[in-house]
Amino acid sequence: MQQFLNARLADGTLADLSVSNGRFSAITSAGDGTRAASAVDLDGWLVVPAFVEGHVHLDTSFYGDAWRPHMPCANGFDVRERVAFQARNLAAAAPMAERARNQLELCLGNGSLSMRSHVMVSADVGLKHVECILAVREEYRDWIDIQLVAFPQSGILSSPGTSELMDEALKMGCDLVGGLDPASFDGDVKGHLDAVFGLAEKHGAGIDIHLHDGGSLGLFEIGEIVARTKASGMVGKVAVSHAYALGEVEPDALARAADGLAAASVAIMTNAPGSHAFPPVAALRAAGVTVFGGSDNIRDSWWPYGDGDMLNRANMIGYRSGFYEDRELEDAFDVVTHTGATALGLEGYGLVPGARADFVALKAAHVPEAVVAVPRERAVYRAGRLVARDGKLLGR
Amino acid sequence: MQQFLNARLADGTLADLSVSNGRFSAITSAGDGTRAASAVDLDGWLVVPAFVEGHVHLDTSFYGDAWRPHMPCANGFDVRERVAFQARNLAAAAPMAERARNQLELCLGNGSLSMRSHVMVSADVGLKHVECILAVREEYRDWIDIQLVAFPQSGILSSPGTSELMDEALKMGCDLVGGLDPASFDGDVKGHLDAVFGLAEKHGAGIDIHLHDGGSLGLFEIGEIVARTKASGMVGKVAVSHAYALGEVEPDALARAADGLAAASVAIMTNAPGSHAFPPVAALRAAGVTVFGGSDNIRDSWWPYGDGDMLNRANMIGYRSGFYEDRELEDAFDVVTHTGATALGLEGYGLVPGARADFVALKAAHVPEAVVAVPRERAVYRAGRLVARDGKLLGR
Repeated sequence: MQQFLNARLADGTLADLSVSNGRFSAITSAGDGTRAASAVDLDGWLVVPAFVEGHVHLDTSFYGDAWRPHMPCANGFDVRERVAFQARNLAAAAPMAERARNQLELCLGNGSLSMRSHVMVSADVGLKHVECILAVREEYRDWIDIQLVAFPQSGILSSPGTSELMDEALKMGCDLVGGLDPASFDGDVKGHLDAVFGLAEKHGAGIDIHLHDGGSLGLFEIGEIVARTKASGMVGKVAVSHAYALGEVEPDALARAADGLAAASVAIMTNAPGSHAFPPVAALRAAGVTVFGGSDNIRDSWWPYGDGDMLNRANMIGYRSGFYEDRELEDAFDVVTHTGATALGLEGYGLVPGARADFVALKAAHVPEAVVAVPRERAVYRAGRLVARDGKLLGR
Repeated sequence: MQQFLNARLADGTLADLSVSNGRFSAITSAGDGTRAASAVDLDGWLVVPAFVEGHVHLDTSFYGDAWRPHMPCANGFDVRERVAFQARNLAAAAPMAERARNQLELCLGNGSLSMRSHVMVSADVGLKHVECILAVREEYRDWIDIQLVAFPQSGILSSPGTSELMDEALKMGCDLVGGLDPASFDGDVKGHLDAVFGLAEKHGAGIDIHLHDGGSLGLFEIGEIVARTKASGMVGKVAVSHAYALGEVEPDALARAADGLAAASVAIMTNAPGSHAFPPVAALRAAGVTVFGGSDNIRDSWWPYGDGDMLNRANMIGYRSGFYEDRELEDAFDVVTHTGATALGLEGYGLVPGARADFVALKAAHVPEAVVAVPRERAVYRAGRLVARDGKLLGR
C-alpha cells in the first residue's frame, strides 16, 4: 500500500490518500489514519484526477521535430488544400513514431493520463499511420490510456477504399470510427454517415466525427448525427469534434440542437479556438450536453499552436467563454477532467475509493486558482506511481 | 565591460554582445572578437529586447494576496457597479504597496522592464493610490521603468474634484493623463476630453484613455480623440486603451478610423480579451497604426485572469487574431516589444549598439517558436545585470 498525505481536495479540505494495486483504497481526512514511514507528503498541494486529453492527432504533430512554418491556403481556408500541404510536410518530417512519442510525452508530462487520438486512414496512406500509432500505444500502455479513432482525413466517399481500410483499422485495434465534414468534404451527408454508423455497428465501436461545417449546414449535420445515434442504439457512444456551427447560430436554434444532443448523449469536443466561433460551453452544459476538451492539433500543418497541457486548455476554454466566477472556472476545469472522462467512457475515473490512482498534484490552493494560474509545478501519478514532475517525464 | 556570448538573434545568427555602462557597446558575429574570461555564455538562447508591459493597474491587483472570487454585475456588465465592487474588495485587501510589489515583481520576473500603469484618482480615494504607487516606483527604479497614468476610475465630471486631483497627481510625478469612456461614463464627450487634453497641455504630458464604449459610439469618440490630438499638437503622444469599437465595426468604417489614428499617431492598446471583440491587430498595423499590448488587470476585481507575462500575451494576441504564419507570429511579438516601445516613447530600446542592455534570453530557437511555446526558461537582464531567472527575481 502507498500513502499520500496532505492532499488538498477541490473542496479545500486536506486528505490522506491510500493506494493499493494502483487504485485508491481509502481517502480520509488528513491525519486520521496511521501513516507509513514511506508515505509521500503532498504538502497541501491541490490534488485532482489526471487530465483527459480528448482530441489529438498523434500521427501528424511536428512537436520536437524541426520547425515547419505554417503556410496559408491559397484561397482562404480549404480542408482539401490543407490536407495536401500536410502530406508534403509529413513526407519531410522525422519518423512518425518519434513524433508521436514526443507529443505523447508532452501531454503525459503535463498530466493527461488518458487520451483520444485520431489517426489518419486514407487511400494514400493506407494503414501505415494506424500501424505506427498502435505500436506507440503499446509502448506506453503502462503510462497512458489511449483511444484511437480511425480517421478518414481524405473523406470516405471521396477516397475510394477508405471504408474498407477503416474496417481493417478497427480489426487491428482502433477503438472508434471517425468522420469528416459529411457535407463539405464528401458532398453526401447520408452516404458518409451510412459508412460511419455502419462500421460502428459492425464493430460495436464508438464514433467521433470532425465537423467544421458551420451555420445551418453544420446544424443540419448535427441533427442527422443525433437522429442516427438514437435510431442505431448508439446513445452515449457518439461525439462530434469542433462543431463550430453551435457557436454560430441563433439562441433558439442552439437550444433545439442542444436538446437533441443531450437526449442522444452525443458529446461535443472543443479546443476553444482563438479566432473562430466555437460551441457555447456554458449553454450546452446547462442543457445537459457532455462537453469535453482537447488540444486538437499540436504544432502541425494546421496551425503552430498547442502545448499539450489540458490545464492550460481549461484556462483557454474559460478565457474564451468569458468565465470569471469561481463556479465558471470550475466548469472549465470539469470539461478537461470529469466530463472528459464521461465523454471517453473511462472506467474508474476520479478521486474516490475504488478509482484508479491516476492523479496530478498541483501547486495551487484550489481549482479556480489552478485554472487561472496554470502552474507548471506539478507531479503526475499513474496508478500511484510518480511518472512526471514539472512537465518532465521520469524514468524513461 | 560585460560580454554575452552566443546570443541567438531574431534573424537566426549567433552574436556576441558587449555591454558598457548599462548599454550595448557592440554586437558582433559570435566568435569574432576577444572574449573576456568573465563572459557569460548564452548558449544559443534567443535574445530579445525586454518586453514592454503597456497597460497594468498596479494599485488594484490582488496577485499574491488572498484569492478574491469574481462577482458578476447584477445587471450585465456595468462599469459603475464594477468600480463599487472593486472599492469593497480593496478595502479588505492587503496593503496596496505590498500588492503592487507582488504584481510588479511578477511582470519583471517574466521579462518586462518597462511598464505603463494606470493609477486611480478620484474624489473617494483622492491621491492615496498615486502616493503609494509613486513610492513603489521609486523603490524599483533600478529594476524597471514605470510610466504612471493619473486614471479617473470614477470619471472626471461625475466625480467632482477629480480634475484638480489629477492636476496634483501630475505635479507629484504622474507622467500621463488618463481618461475613461467619455460618453458612457461621464455622459459628456466634449467635457471629458476638454479636461483630459487641458491637463495634458498644461503639464506637457501624454494621454492614455480607457475606451470600452463599442460600435459607432466608440468610433465617434475615437474620431474626437484623433481630431483633438491633431488640433492640440499632441501627435504621437496619445493612446487609446481597449478601443473595443475597432473590433465591432464594418471594414470601411474601420479603415477610416485606422487612417485617422495613423495620421495622428494615436496608439491603440489591446490585451486580446477572450470573449469580447477587440481591435484587429493585422488590419491596424497594415494601416500604420501603432498597436501595443498590455496585461490589463491581473487578478483583480474585473476578472481573475492575467499572468504578467508579455510573451504569453503575444501568444494570446496571435491566437485571438488567427496568426499562424511565422511573419504573423513575429508581428504579435513586435506588439509586445518594438511597437510597445514606440507607443511608450522609450529611449534607447532594442538590440543595437547604444541601446540600453535590457534584454531577455529565452530557451527558443526563434521568435515564432517563442510565441507559440512561451518558454518559462528565461533570463532577464537589466542594464546588463541578471535580475530574474525562470520567473523568479534575483537579489531582492
